[in-house]
Amino acid sequence: MKRTNRRRILQLGAGLGGGLLGKADEGRAPGRPLSGYGERSKYVKPVRTMRQSKTPQAGSSATPLADMYGILTPSALHYERHHAGIPDIDPDQHTLLIHGLVERPLLLTMEDIRRLPSVSRIHFLECGGNSGGEWQEKTGPDAQRAYGLASCSEWTGVPLRLALREAGVKPEAKWMIAEGADACRMQRSVPLTKDLDDALLAYGQNGEPLRPEQGFPLRLLTPGWEGNVQVKWLRRLFLTAEPHYTRDETSRYSDLMPDGKARIFTLTQEAKSLVTFPSGGRRLAGSGLYEITGLAWTGRGRITRVEVTLDGGRTWQDARLEEPVLRKAFTRFRLPWEWDGKAAVIASRATDESGYVQPTREQLIAVRGRNSGSHFNGIKMWRVQADGSVTNDDA
Amino acid sequence: MKRTNRRRILQLGAGLGGGLLGKADEGRAPGRPLSGYGERSKYVKPVRTMRQSKTPQAGSSATPLADMYGILTPSALHYERHHAGIPDIDPDQHTLLIHGLVERPLLLTMEDIRRLPSVSRIHFLECGGNSGGEWQEKTGPDAQRAYGLASCSEWTGVPLRLALREAGVKPEAKWMIAEGADACRMQRSVPLTKDLDDALLAYGQNGEPLRPEQGFPLRLLTPGWEGNVQVKWLRRLFLTAEPHYTRDETSRYSDLMPDGKARIFTLTQEAKSLVTFPSGGRRLAGSGLYEITGLAWTGRGRITRVEVTLDGGRTWQDARLEEPVLRKAFTRFRLPWEWDGKAAVIASRATDESGYVQPTREQLIAVRGRNSGSHFNGIKMWRVQADGSVTNDDA
Repeated sequence: MKRTNRRRILQLGAGLGGGLLGKADEGRAPGRPLSGYGERSKYVKPVRTMRQSKTPQAGSSATPLADMYGILTPSALHYERHHAGIPDIDPDQHTLLIHGLVERPLLLTMEDIRRLPSVSRIHFLECGGNSGGEWQEKTGPDAQRAYGLASCSEWTGVPLRLALREAGVKPEAKWMIAEGADACRMQRSVPLTKDLDDALLAYGQNGEPLRPEQGFPLRLLTPGWEGNVQVKWLRRLFLTAEPHYTRDETSRYSDLMPDGKARIFTLTQEAKSLVTFPSGGRRLAGSGLYEITGLAWTGRGRITRVEVTLDGGRTWQDARLEEPVLRKAFTRFRLPWEWDGKAAVIASRATDESGYVQPTREQLIAVRGRNSGSHFNGIKMWRVQADGSVTNDDA
Repeated sequence: MKRTNRRRILQLGAGLGGGLLGKADEGRAPGRPLSGYGERSKYVKPVRTMRQSKTPQAGSSATPLADMYGILTPSALHYERHHAGIPDIDPDQHTLLIHGLVERPLLLTMEDIRRLPSVSRIHFLECGGNSGGEWQEKTGPDAQRAYGLASCSEWTGVPLRLALREAGVKPEAKWMIAEGADACRMQRSVPLTKDLDDALLAYGQNGEPLRPEQGFPLRLLTPGWEGNVQVKWLRRLFLTAEPHYTRDETSRYSDLMPDGKARIFTLTQEAKSLVTFPSGGRRLAGSGLYEITGLAWTGRGRITRVEVTLDGGRTWQDARLEEPVLRKAFTRFRLPWEWDGKAAVIASRATDESGYVQPTREQLIAVRGRNSGSHFNGIKMWRVQADGSVTNDDA
């Protein structure tokens, strides 16, 4: 560590007296007692920012990524995306029906599901529409509003393949229609591919039952795929030969290409990263040592490299990846930075184990045009001004 | 997966009609809208159980381990142990003083600390007194009340060695006295050994700032050591040549041996494990397939093996360890179990990377007697009765 914090660190020297400790010796009354279920400090303020439609039950809320430490998102701040609000489901009444092209239709209670062999894994979840504003330069002013439809949790559940094996999937079944118990009965067609090897019927999140916003008591988890297909409040899996082309796979979550055709079922979230410090809306308190940090993730497995630029992409240096680097999970990267007080344009670039390198925004637009709406994963630049303020890079 | 759940799984066959789906089609009104900061479902009830002294600010509360999934503990359910309540600290006013046998005394604000290079790691924390009732057969009736003073979080902070290097520790300094900002100014003497290589000045927990119960805004984290030494609300590190023999290292957290001498500064939590399902207070709903699961941990690094017995320790079989198996973190183990409906005595036995094997209670008592109070890590047996009820094994 360089000794750069001298401006702010008092060197007290030999003259250290009772003054500093005396001041801190105020307020010695006993504090608050124990509690059954804890709350965060009143001094900690970040909340999810909400985007609502005319119907308040349809909308999204975003994780304050720049306020997050490590790779986990507190469940209370996990992003939300609802199409008909959050249903109030009694887990003792909830069932999962597996039917259609199966040998043995099954109706499972939550008690059935919790008895089965289970696994726990840390995985990111990202809305297919996250950072969609970047296509059109309508991007949000900060990490939360531009990129906050992504979060990471430890999920626990039953491997989907166990439940499907028990039902006996018929050879002609190539898809399953996953349906939620929300008021709109949200449906997505899920292809039965090898990518489902790590899919879960998930009932646990960060050590406790799923939060209501995340599908309590049961959701489909298909790690690495867009969030919308990971149906919450899961009540039904209907095995079919063909997809159902539901509303959320035709009018939404598709990618309109320059030739007027649309890519659909583009489920895998490609490698992406974001510098969360410094990022839009923050202000640096003068030159000196800082730590550049951020998050990288990929639906294709592990992140293998994150590079950081300080000059708008002309030169790059490797950031340190925080261990453990997990499959289909947020990876935290860090790079010490001695800021000289001059303007800088900062960004990160992720590479994953498939060899895929996160493209620039321009490269992405050159191929896909600007009307995709979803699945933006281009490099995101932040501009640090000489006064320490940080904004989107509109240069 | 064996097909053992047939008693509870309805095989709907070809006659599947609208009845089941019709029933589930009730209640189609839109649900609750988005929120800034989420809460758990009203159907999810577990809370910390509290043990208070005559002074309500001094006591402990225990994590409901049998209700936890995976390896993480929700911050709201992390165990507590306070000696003078939880102080209400404004982080903008909080400072850490590093002084004593150092070249350059430092006074660091929280802003200073958050600017420094940081790391995030998942580590367990366990009270030195956890499961102390096992020495005297005063054990609690369930996993929570007997073993719940242990939890696991992702912690973020500045490596302690960076701060100490900046202060310049003098060669004669062999200890540091860590002091909290609670009303009792809790102090512990911390030996400056190699074990501190992974110590942190921690300000983050599970993605957000430390919870107040865990030392907001700053705590010492010395992974693998007993919880009490990991001083919360950390305000001072005083470097010294000798320990201070504070109250919490003489009258408490010491181990009274059979010869009348006491071991003190027994900081490292040795390998330990616990079956959390089935465990005391649960009831199995008839014979059939279950998953035995639990947690293992060691202050000496990684857990390398967990074995499970179904017959009170006569025979053992290996459980599956859930990846990732992390240093000084909870490790989740699982083993499918076909229960035949007969009485069984179930326990787990952990081995760590140092080669240490968790002892039986009898082995531990043979060496240490029964007056230690702290640092019990013997094998814990649960008795499953033929009626499915689960109790402590008092046989």
